[in-house]
Amino acid sequence: MNLSKTLQEYFNELSSNSPTPGGGNVAALCGALSASLGTMVCNLTIGKKKYADVESEMITQKEKLENYQKKFFELGAQDNAAFEKVMDAFKLPKETEQEKDARSKAIEEATIGATTAPMEVIQTSKALLSILETIIDKGNKNSISDAGVAVALVGTAAKGAYLNVLINCSSLSNQTIANELKKTADILVGEVIHTSDRIFEQVVKAVESK
Amino acid sequence: MNLSKTLQEYFNELSSNSPTPGGGNVAALCGALSASLGTMVCNLTIGKKKYADVESEMITQKEKLENYQKKFFELGAQDNAAFEKVMDAFKLPKETEQEKDARSKAIEEATIGATTAPMEVIQTSKALLSILETIIDKGNKNSISDAGVAVALVGTAAKGAYLNVLINCSSLSNQTIANELKKTADILVGEVIHTSDRIFEQVVKAVESK
Repeated sequence: MNLSKTLQEYFNELSSNSPTPGGGNVAALCGALSASLGTMVCNLTIGKKKYADVESEMITQKEKLENYQKKFFELGAQDNAAFEKVMDAFKLPKETEQEKDARSKAIEEATIGATTAPMEVIQTSKALLSILETIIDKGNKNSISDAGVAVALVGTAAKGAYLNVLINCSSLSNQTIANELKKTADILVGEVIHTSDRIFEQVVKAVESK
Repeated sequence: MNLSKTLQEYFNELSSNSPTPGGGNVAALCGALSASLGTMVCNLTIGKKKYADVESEMITQKEKLENYQKKFFELGAQDNAAFEKVMDAFKLPKETEQEKDARSKAIEEATIGATTAPMEVIQTSKALLSILETIIDKGNKNSISDAGVAVALVGTAAKGAYLNVLINCSSLSNQTIANELKKTADILVGEVIHTSDRIFEQVVKAVESK
């Protein structure tokens, strides 16, 4: 992810008909936004007398969140690169039988490659959720709604990445690989959605009873 | 929303312990990202022979999406401003009884004001969903996963804004106003979550059967 771009530039590129950034990149961005909001809650907890007993834990969680944010940025960039590789494969010559075979093989390989970043987005979302749960439990209660937004974002990161695994699988010739990838993604995304919905409901109740 | 900021600057400010931007701003940003992805799908449909019969409709939907994107940017800025107004009210003097009363009144008014932007984020999310449903139905099928990410983002925009309505209501003295606001938000967010989940499932099925 090129972080030196302005928000305006990012939104212009996203809205345009250029292939990247697209939904896969936005899924990773949601993960980064979630990690960032989690970091904010840690920063609003660290140094507060009331939360002195969880200070060292918050510092540890904050470091993890900063690493996850970086990870999501990397996955966003990887998603763009993988998609461009698929597009390049489609542009290969297809005059002779040999060229047609080489092109099909390149498309297949690039498409399998394009499932790696979204699959990692789902996995990283799952790991991020467990940190957010700790922060909601122990962090500054005045920022619990921010942590709740972070939880909802994780759900969208995973759901968005899941669609990107599925759409790549749908165009694979190798059905064995496609089914394996789909099965792994199904299980993972199911876990993330279930957990994020559960934690979100907890946050709603906590906010209502404040 | 200050769109001339770089992504790096936005993320740094979000992660920091400064009160804004926070979860409410990110909720509005999710709405803008959703509208932007929807615009991308329109742009990938307009001008394509295969979709010539829906071209004029896609142009209409695209214009609506561009307006919604702007609306979400405005709501993000409003959310920041409203939160800062609450913070300012808390800083008012509280030496005399008169000052205490004036301060309490200012906090109450600013807190009610801080529910306006998130409530509008939920309303605008609902309106955005119906456009996304049309685009999923009629737009470029190769971009259906991008439209699906947009649908998931709408859910997070509404959920995030909902938490911001709730947290402001929880600190209001006027329980009648708090209950009315909560009731409106409950109904609206329920509709948005239900519809976005339903459309997301449709997109999953459509991608799987591609």
